[in-house]
Amino acid sequence: MPSSRYVSPKSMYFREPLVLESGASIAGYTLVYETYGTLNADRSNAVLVCHALNASHHVSGVYEDTGEVGWWDNMVGPGKALDTDRFFVIGVNNLGHCYGSTGPMHINPATGKHYGADFPVMTVQDWVDAQARLADGLGIQQFAAVMGGSLGGMQAMTWTLRYPDRVANAVIIASTSHLSAQNIAFNEVARTAILSDPDFHGGDFYSYGVVPKNGLRVARMVGHITYLSNDDMSEKFGRELRSGEYKFGYGVEFEIESYLQYQGNKFSSFFDANTYLLITRALDYFDPAAKYGGDLSKALEKTRAKYLIVSFTTDWRFSPECSRIIVDALIHNGRQVTYAEIDAPHGHDAFLLNDARYHETVRAYYDRIWQEITEVD
Amino acid sequence: MPSSRYVSPKSMYFREPLVLESGASIAGYTLVYETYGTLNADRSNAVLVCHALNASHHVSGVYEDTGEVGWWDNMVGPGKALDTDRFFVIGVNNLGHCYGSTGPMHINPATGKHYGADFPVMTVQDWVDAQARLADGLGIQQFAAVMGGSLGGMQAMTWTLRYPDRVANAVIIASTSHLSAQNIAFNEVARTAILSDPDFHGGDFYSYGVVPKNGLRVARMVGHITYLSNDDMSEKFGRELRSGEYKFGYGVEFEIESYLQYQGNKFSSFFDANTYLLITRALDYFDPAAKYGGDLSKALEKTRAKYLIVSFTTDWRFSPECSRIIVDALIHNGRQVTYAEIDAPHGHDAFLLNDARYHETVRAYYDRIWQEITEVD
Repeated sequence: MPSSRYVSPKSMYFREPLVLESGASIAGYTLVYETYGTLNADRSNAVLVCHALNASHHVSGVYEDTGEVGWWDNMVGPGKALDTDRFFVIGVNNLGHCYGSTGPMHINPATGKHYGADFPVMTVQDWVDAQARLADGLGIQQFAAVMGGSLGGMQAMTWTLRYPDRVANAVIIASTSHLSAQNIAFNEVARTAILSDPDFHGGDFYSYGVVPKNGLRVARMVGHITYLSNDDMSEKFGRELRSGEYKFGYGVEFEIESYLQYQGNKFSSFFDANTYLLITRALDYFDPAAKYGGDLSKALEKTRAKYLIVSFTTDWRFSPECSRIIVDALIHNGRQVTYAEIDAPHGHDAFLLNDARYHETVRAYYDRIWQEITEVD
Repeated sequence: MPSSRYVSPKSMYFREPLVLESGASIAGYTLVYETYGTLNADRSNAVLVCHALNASHHVSGVYEDTGEVGWWDNMVGPGKALDTDRFFVIGVNNLGHCYGSTGPMHINPATGKHYGADFPVMTVQDWVDAQARLADGLGIQQFAAVMGGSLGGMQAMTWTLRYPDRVANAVIIASTSHLSAQNIAFNEVARTAILSDPDFHGGDFYSYGVVPKNGLRVARMVGHITYLSNDDMSEKFGRELRSGEYKFGYGVEFEIESYLQYQGNKFSSFFDANTYLLITRALDYFDPAAKYGGDLSKALEKTRAKYLIVSFTTDWRFSPECSRIIVDALIHNGRQVTYAEIDAPHGHDAFLLNDARYHETVRAYYDRIWQEITEVD
């Protein structure tokens, strides 16, 4: 591992309160972020990478102390599809999240206690507004691209709506313009598991020295099922038994049970329950077309960016149909759209995995962006 | 409502212990059942209807006191697809269930306490063995048909394997020969919610005067999502809000949330948590091909029945592909199989709903059975 791959998080504090979509506001807040590569002289090569539910500002590279590799390191780095030898890439932990940026587990300066249940509900737009201040702070007027998968893709789309002049390209992967009833239903199961865990204490569990692990475990398990394709799960786990025979009990017997319990336990040991509620609600609420009577074309009229939209055939959380709806609405507005539907077996999680066609598609798109930047130069 | 539609449950006690597939045995037990129509002189017109997760012996007709209508009353009754003017139909509550037959909430004669966690894990085969004794008690040597949807279909299939000479026809609807990894995963989420509810008390909640309602609610909510199709859920609920606007909180806002909470709350107010565990485990374990190296054709060699198999296009819990696997294995054995894949929008739940093509298919099949019975006469 070359030492150039070592990265460290930074943070920026914003004193000015942020007025949220709900009408509430949050007092001064901190965003934790990382950067990779070098901002060029005319500040035209910046790319913002937005994260999904369980990810962070640590997009690329390696932490020297822990060895932790960035969550999208296969995509972002020197010589990779999003090449940090060319682009100045920023990863930022969203407001309200639990990996360093101000969130429900921090002290509310107004009360001197943990925010807990008092932490305001946030929307994708609020995250983007908070990110815009980070861009200001870094002296970036316009991003060459804003990019994200799943919930990260919603942020990229929202950037092109909220700050049309500040985004040249949006890369929206495995995402959707709105959650379906089924998507919301799965989120509601997760929230119910957390809210009804006695250790949740109405969101103020920090004061009790406990964590609603049981609720978080169930939330993660049900979420995880929606990230994998049925076929992929059958292929990986099938009906394999851990011990080769039925035990006639209710403990873990099938490999798929073991896998889900492992994922749920791990997640519940580090993730914040209030953040989980907040993120699932932001997902539910995301629906740019709602203010336009459900007309996504109308909603996207004000956009100015070019788009790369990518979907995966076996993604049943945000299916290719969800991406096609976005593509159609953009084309209807005369926007320049590249759309790739990748035949991949890994369901929604495919956006995080290595897949040559997928990565080459993204690489080709960034090559084009790079040409445009360097031509301007 | 003609008074002839009024029905009442009966019960039969079996003194002889039942040895289970696990090797454990259960002491004397009671099965609650109902019958509709009249057994003919040569006892050739009996049909057993097996129930799925949340159903019972109350298949058809009406209870005079409560007005409760049988769960498959649209299918079974005078003049209906399964015509009780012709057939003598039996509904039976499965052993271990919570609607009257001996289950975990009853007193274990060996200890004088509730069975609770001591109630043995049961399999589909165990249920069928218990049902066979009921058939003996009713003087029925061979059923004209054994019929069921979902888990009920697994029982019908098992009858033809376990008692090949006692079933002339099996009607297997919206079912499968084995659960997929994804199916098991959803069951594991439900079980984890119940097992980790502090009110579960390791299955002995009866002694504590509490019910693990939170766990049961989550279990039912996640189950319910798998019963409905994505499209049907979108059509029925979409993104409709109860109050027309976002409340920026974690309470119920979307209609789909309200619906799921209602279903979860209702279910948790009457269903037994140990029964839920027992049934989901029986579902997981069902896999007649397992003893034959995964070869379902081999497993079905010993069958003698004729089959009607029905699936529904939008059923993603037990998809048409699951039914086709059964059909192929039966054809491979030279069995007489009628297969109908019904184009219906309502997902797995379609097997309980009115659908003209579906009901006419079943009716035509029973017409044929009736002809065969009366020709013999």
